[in-house]
Amino acid sequence: MSSERGRPDHEIDATDETIHSAWDNGLEPVRTIEPGDVVRFTCTDSTGGQLGPDSTVADVADLDIDRVHSLTGPVAIEGARPGDVLEVELLEVEHGDWGFTLVLPGEAELGLLADEFPEPALHVWDLADGVGRFANGIEVPLDPFPGIMGVAPAEDGAHETFPPRSVGGNVDIKQLTAGSTLYLPVAVEDALFSIGDGHAAQGDGEVCGNGIETPMTVTCRFDLRSDLSIDQPQFETTGPFTSSGRDEPMYGTTGIADDLREAARAAVRNMVDHLRDERGLERSEAYILCSAAVDLKINEVVNAPNWVVSAYLPERIFPADRHRST
Amino acid sequence: MSSERGRPDHEIDATDETIHSAWDNGLEPVRTIEPGDVVRFTCTDSTGGQLGPDSTVADVADLDIDRVHSLTGPVAIEGARPGDVLEVELLEVEHGDWGFTLVLPGEAELGLLADEFPEPALHVWDLADGVGRFANGIEVPLDPFPGIMGVAPAEDGAHETFPPRSVGGNVDIKQLTAGSTLYLPVAVEDALFSIGDGHAAQGDGEVCGNGIETPMTVTCRFDLRSDLSIDQPQFETTGPFTSSGRDEPMYGTTGIADDLREAARAAVRNMVDHLRDERGLERSEAYILCSAAVDLKINEVVNAPNWVVSAYLPERIFPADRHRST
Repeated sequence: MSSERGRPDHEIDATDETIHSAWDNGLEPVRTIEPGDVVRFTCTDSTGGQLGPDSTVADVADLDIDRVHSLTGPVAIEGARPGDVLEVELLEVEHGDWGFTLVLPGEAELGLLADEFPEPALHVWDLADGVGRFANGIEVPLDPFPGIMGVAPAEDGAHETFPPRSVGGNVDIKQLTAGSTLYLPVAVEDALFSIGDGHAAQGDGEVCGNGIETPMTVTCRFDLRSDLSIDQPQFETTGPFTSSGRDEPMYGTTGIADDLREAARAAVRNMVDHLRDERGLERSEAYILCSAAVDLKINEVVNAPNWVVSAYLPERIFPADRHRST
Repeated sequence: MSSERGRPDHEIDATDETIHSAWDNGLEPVRTIEPGDVVRFTCTDSTGGQLGPDSTVADVADLDIDRVHSLTGPVAIEGARPGDVLEVELLEVEHGDWGFTLVLPGEAELGLLADEFPEPALHVWDLADGVGRFANGIEVPLDPFPGIMGVAPAEDGAHETFPPRSVGGNVDIKQLTAGSTLYLPVAVEDALFSIGDGHAAQGDGEVCGNGIETPMTVTCRFDLRSDLSIDQPQFETTGPFTSSGRDEPMYGTTGIADDLREAARAAVRNMVDHLRDERGLERSEAYILCSAAVDLKINEVVNAPNWVVSAYLPERIFPADRHRST
């Protein structure tokens, strides 16, 4: 059974019966589909609806982490066998009209600079106009994508959703927008695909631990590829590689260290300070903005013993720069 | 003393008297300039002329590593004091008509997958037509930049040029093309700026240990900024962020691991295998091509304990894809 692009064969809404918060190859599939089928998923925000457009930083302390992430699925793909590759073509991705980005200290230790940001913080974004509105007139362009897509792992039992694995999961690849195709290595019979963690936008690195988290609707076509053999996810995409889709002015900070993660931390710390000194943001605001809009690149990882990571801030998110550019 | 853009106040050619192969704040400056001055540098290739357009892989074994890198300078900037920031505006960068990329095994352990590529390899690139010609009709777009720009370190004595430091040096930031501005923290009186390691192109990561190495001419304007305070290099740039300067089709591989460098290694290894299986390249050719044209991004570094690094291959470098695209 196949369908025209955008005319789904299946619609799976996020309900108590269709969401789950752990990877487990023993979960009953919520639907069984055939290769070629198109499925339209709705997904809650990553907290499973614990936060909403009226939430404040006081609500962050009450979050039940066990309900993060709330994933829709699993879907069984008939005929999928371990060693196959599941092809997931992203036909359409729609974000909600609100989103949030938070700093969550404590046990969760969420974030690249968790030790330097001990206080909770929250920004609720208005996404209704198709841009993300921040402080000081800053507008972050939106390019929605699912932060989590994956298939069930081979190992029995319940596995946390936070770490990505070779079968996919919480990979947070911001280039997996509509038009992209993801390839996942199948580890169990019927593959058991799940999806969630909608992001309206995110910087490469997702440095404070989340992007612009939002409820999401995703339409995908599934297929099986027995001609491919992969060990970890692979994909085809046309980006976005910058927030405008083309070369644009960026301010860059570097982090230079003999450990790649420390280099990434230094690059982000230097960017947070830049946003405080030159753009008048509070440091926690700056940290949140980095997670939503600043991209981390590995410049070199070969000039021993020091590696270089850079953080790229698109200057057109600022009102004065936006009005200057053509 | 200041000058019109492109009309240099000083020309410094690479000669035995103007090149050096170590960072050392005791080196005599080859020229003293004033803030605002424009300097046109010529630089040898990174080996100091040990390789040329007719070199073969047999020549790689004879390389004198002590002559790598051959830097032009140092230039004294009058009035620069420790704590100042040296502004380097890149007005013009020109590559030579040939270049090389090599795999150098042995003691140097150059390269992210050095242990997996024990044999030397060399590709000499014809750059005369403004693109880099590789095997199988592959053409790599060129965006030249200096891999090394830096000022003398505060610590006395000779320091190797391979590792980048907080005062800059071998940072290999491929976005530092003409039109970009680099900010370097000054560590000694007169700053003592040097430049070299010309790259006609490079992938983010420089994974086999070098880009498309080429002789280079660079024209820069220098200034002092006492209003800035930075600990590591920062910069302004408009890219390139993809090889065409805009969103374009990419094939991506992921590396997922609990160590960021291992994640980068896996992403590159998976890309090398993809280039072998799907594009018919030898693995050592694929490794060289990754270093010249494939970009490493940190997708997430917060979903403990596993981080995701992706490698992005621009598909328009292949003849069939180039002819298909508009």
